[in-house]
Amino acid sequence: MPLDTDSLLARLASAFPGPALLAGDDIPARNLHDTSFLANVTPLAVLRPDTPEAVAEAVRLCAEAGVAMVPQGGLTGLAGGGHPIDGAVMISLERFNGIEEIDPASSTMTVRAGTPLEVIQKAADEAGFFIPLDLGARGSCLIGGNIGTNAGGNRVIRYGMTREMILGLEYVLPDGTLVSGLNKMLKNNAGYDLKQLFIGSEGTLGIVTRAVLRMHPKPGCVNAALCGLGSYDDVVNLLAEARRGLGPMLSAFEVMWPDYWQVVTETVGTRSPLEGKHAFYVLLETQGLDEEIDGPRFMSWIERVYEAGLLEDAAISQSLSDVQRFWDVRDACAEFMTRLGPHCAYDIGLPVTSMDAFADACRSRLVEAMPEALSVYYGHIGDGNLHIVALDRAVKEQPMDRISSIVYATVRDFRGTISAEHGIGLLKKPYLPYTRSAEELALMARIKAALDPAGLLNPGKVIDTPTGDLK
Amino acid sequence: MPLDTDSLLARLASAFPGPALLAGDDIPARNLHDTSFLANVTPLAVLRPDTPEAVAEAVRLCAEAGVAMVPQGGLTGLAGGGHPIDGAVMISLERFNGIEEIDPASSTMTVRAGTPLEVIQKAADEAGFFIPLDLGARGSCLIGGNIGTNAGGNRVIRYGMTREMILGLEYVLPDGTLVSGLNKMLKNNAGYDLKQLFIGSEGTLGIVTRAVLRMHPKPGCVNAALCGLGSYDDVVNLLAEARRGLGPMLSAFEVMWPDYWQVVTETVGTRSPLEGKHAFYVLLETQGLDEEIDGPRFMSWIERVYEAGLLEDAAISQSLSDVQRFWDVRDACAEFMTRLGPHCAYDIGLPVTSMDAFADACRSRLVEAMPEALSVYYGHIGDGNLHIVALDRAVKEQPMDRISSIVYATVRDFRGTISAEHGIGLLKKPYLPYTRSAEELALMARIKAALDPAGLLNPGKVIDTPTGDLK
Repeated sequence: MPLDTDSLLARLASAFPGPALLAGDDIPARNLHDTSFLANVTPLAVLRPDTPEAVAEAVRLCAEAGVAMVPQGGLTGLAGGGHPIDGAVMISLERFNGIEEIDPASSTMTVRAGTPLEVIQKAADEAGFFIPLDLGARGSCLIGGNIGTNAGGNRVIRYGMTREMILGLEYVLPDGTLVSGLNKMLKNNAGYDLKQLFIGSEGTLGIVTRAVLRMHPKPGCVNAALCGLGSYDDVVNLLAEARRGLGPMLSAFEVMWPDYWQVVTETVGTRSPLEGKHAFYVLLETQGLDEEIDGPRFMSWIERVYEAGLLEDAAISQSLSDVQRFWDVRDACAEFMTRLGPHCAYDIGLPVTSMDAFADACRSRLVEAMPEALSVYYGHIGDGNLHIVALDRAVKEQPMDRISSIVYATVRDFRGTISAEHGIGLLKKPYLPYTRSAEELALMARIKAALDPAGLLNPGKVIDTPTGDLK
Repeated sequence: MPLDTDSLLARLASAFPGPALLAGDDIPARNLHDTSFLANVTPLAVLRPDTPEAVAEAVRLCAEAGVAMVPQGGLTGLAGGGHPIDGAVMISLERFNGIEEIDPASSTMTVRAGTPLEVIQKAADEAGFFIPLDLGARGSCLIGGNIGTNAGGNRVIRYGMTREMILGLEYVLPDGTLVSGLNKMLKNNAGYDLKQLFIGSEGTLGIVTRAVLRMHPKPGCVNAALCGLGSYDDVVNLLAEARRGLGPMLSAFEVMWPDYWQVVTETVGTRSPLEGKHAFYVLLETQGLDEEIDGPRFMSWIERVYEAGLLEDAAISQSLSDVQRFWDVRDACAEFMTRLGPHCAYDIGLPVTSMDAFADACRSRLVEAMPEALSVYYGHIGDGNLHIVALDRAVKEQPMDRISSIVYATVRDFRGTISAEHGIGLLKKPYLPYTRSAEELALMARIKAALDPAGLLNPGKVIDTPTGDLK
C-alpha cells in the first residue's frame, strides 16, 4: 500500500523531529551528489537518524510507504553507489558517529557507521594500536561507507581489504529489521557468516549501523625504497623476492608504468627521487618491529636484489620524510584532475602476470580509436589491482562511454575484473557482465530478491531486483 | 514431480557408469558416517563424480527427482555436517582431486575439491610456498570440506581462517547450476562476493568443486616457548605484549588451563617441558624470516617479558624438535579418547577477557550437576577459541545432552559462540539459538530458502528451509 509522498514526509517529520530530517530547500548541496561526477539529483528528503533503532524505524517507514531509500556515508564513493535517486529518501549515517569501545585484550574497536575513517585511525593510534585501512578520502569518508564498498587502499597486500578487518556487524535489512551481530572473536562458525553479505554490497542489501573492527599492532618502523627496473619480468621477480625475503613485513608494492612516471614528473612536476629513466618504477614499503633490526635487514635485502640484477637503481629511505617523499610520487595522481583536465579513471584487477600485456593492449586500442589518446597505468600489483587514467587529448568533452567500452572490453579479454576496489555503483553497472558470468549475475539477483523483494534499497545500483518471478 | 527411487537409481546408473556410483551393498562402511559419532546411516547411493560438470549433472538429476543430497569430503567433520541422511544421495568429491595449477607470480594454487589438505601443503612446500591451514586430520580431510566448514586450526591468529585463504571458488547450486568464479586477485569488488556464501555453510547452499587458494611465503625459521604463568591476567598481558613485540611473526598462542595440563602430564603421560606447576601454560610460536635475526629477537623478547614479571618459567626451543616437543603437549588431546574414555568435546568462542571466568563457571556448574564431572580447558585464545573436554566419571554412558546443555547455557550467559571452528552440522543445531539472535536465524533461513527452496541440499543441517511461505 504505497503512501503518497506528502503523507510519508508527514510521518517522517513526526518520527524524526529537528535536525534528523532535511527536506526541500533545507537539503544542502553536498547531499545532491557523491564523488562519481554524475549530475546532481535532489532527493525527496535526507533522513539523519542517530541510533540503530532510528535507522531501522526510518527504513520501516519508507518500506511501508513503498518509497526507495539510498544509504549515505561520507559521499566519497567513485562509482555512484551513494548517489541520490530522484524521489528517494537518503538515509545518512553522519549523525550516528563515534567510537563505542576499544577492547585492548581482544584488539577490537566497536564503532558507529557514521565515524570518519581518520577519527578511527587516530583513536587506534592513541590506544597503541593500528588500523591499516587507509585511503585518500580518510578525513571525509565514513566507516559505514568503507564497509559498504569493501574499501581497499595501499596496504591490502599485508592486511587485506576492509572485509578482513570486520569481526562483527550490525545492520538494518530492507524491511526495517535490525540485525545485531557485534562479534569480537576471530573465529565464529555458528551458522552462515551473514555479515559477509553486507560488506561490499554497496548498500543494496542492508544499511550498516555498527561494526567491530580488528585492530593490529602498531608498526615499530617503516622503511621504503623507490626502485627503477628494466622490464616487467624483473617487476614480477622482484615481487616474488619481496614476498619471500620480507614476508609479512611487506606492506606495499606499488608499480608505476613509464607513462605514469612521465606525467607525474613532467606534467604534475613532482620531483623524482631517481635520476635516470627506467622501464618500470616500484615503490616498496615494509613495516617492521624495530628500526635497529629491521632497518639493516631491509637494506641488506635491497642490496641482495640489486646484486642479483633485478634493480637498475634504487633510492632507499633514510627517514620518515623520505618515505613520504616516495609516496608523493605515487600520490601525485590526485593532481591529475587539475593538471590533465577531465579524464576517465579506472580501477581494474588482473592476474599479476598479465598486467603489462594488458597495459600494452589497452594503450594500443585507445590510440587506434583516438590517435591523441593518453593513458597511464599504475597500481597495487601485488594485489592484482591496476589503476588507469585515460583521456582523448584531441577533445574537450571526454567520450567516457567510448573510452570505458574499450578499457572494459580489454579487461574482459584478459579475464580481469572491472572493479578491484571502488565498487560497481551506477557507473560500472552496464559493464558488470564483462567480468561476471550469467550464472553469477543470476545468483546476485536471487540474493537481492531474497533480501529486498520490493527493490526499495538503493535501487538501480550494482544489480536489479528481478521482476516477474516475485509475489 | 518426485521420481521413485528405483527410477532415479536407473537414471544415475546410466549417467554415471562404473566406479562413480555405489549403491546397496557396494557402499563401503566408511561412507556410512562422519567423525561426529552419530549412528551409522546407509544412504540411497554414493555418487562420486569426477568433473565439475558431472557434479552439476548429479545435483540436477537428484533435484529433478526431488531426492535429498549430502555433499561429502573426507568425512572428518566433528559436527555431523557430512553425516549421511536416510534416503539421500551422497555426492562425494573424493574422485575429483588434484592440483590444477600453481601460479607463483600470483601466489595462488587452483585445486579440486577432493584434494587432501596434506597433498596441498606438500605441493605448496615443493613450489617454495606455504599453505598455513593445518589441522590434525590433514591426511584425510579434503579441501572442499575445509572450505565448507571454514576450517580454522592453530595459526588463525596470524593467517586467518580458511575463508581468508580463498580467492576464487567454483560451486554447484542446489538446482544443478555450475557457477565458476575462479578469481586469482586479492581485490575484486565487482558485485556481491558470492563465494562467501559457500564458505562455512557446510554444504547446505551449494557444493564446492574447485578453489583458488592464496599461498604465503614459506617461513624461514620457527621459534617457540612453553611458558608457565601465575594468573589469567598475566596470560592476557602476555598476549598483548606478544602482539606488540612479535607483530606479524606471532603464529600461535595456545593456552592450557591447569586441569588440562594435569590430564596430559598425568593421565596421558606426556612429558612436561617445564618442571614446576603453574596456574596457566602458554605455547607461543613465531614464524620468522631468518634464524640469525629472528632467533635472537625472540630470545630477547622472552627475556624482556620474563624480567617484567609476566612469566614464572619458560622453556625455549633450541631446535625444531623442541618446537615439536612443545606442540606434543598441546596435541596430546588427540589421546583423550583412549585415555579418558568416551567424553564430550566442545569448540566454543569467547571474548579473550571472559575466558577464565567462563571456565570457572562452566566447571562449577558441571560439578554441581554431576559431582564426578571432569572438564578441561585449552585453546587458541588469541583467536577467542576455547576447547573443552568434559565427562561424568561416575557413569559409563555419557549424558551428552545434559553436559551440552550446561556448557552451551554457560556460553550463552557469557555471550560466546557455540562453534568457533567445527561448525554446526547436526550435533549443535539445537543450540544455534543460544548464540544467534532470532533475526540472524530468520535471515539464515531466508538465504537457505532463496538458494535451496525445495530443501534438498544437506537438509536438516545448520538451518532448515522454512516451510509455508514457499511456492
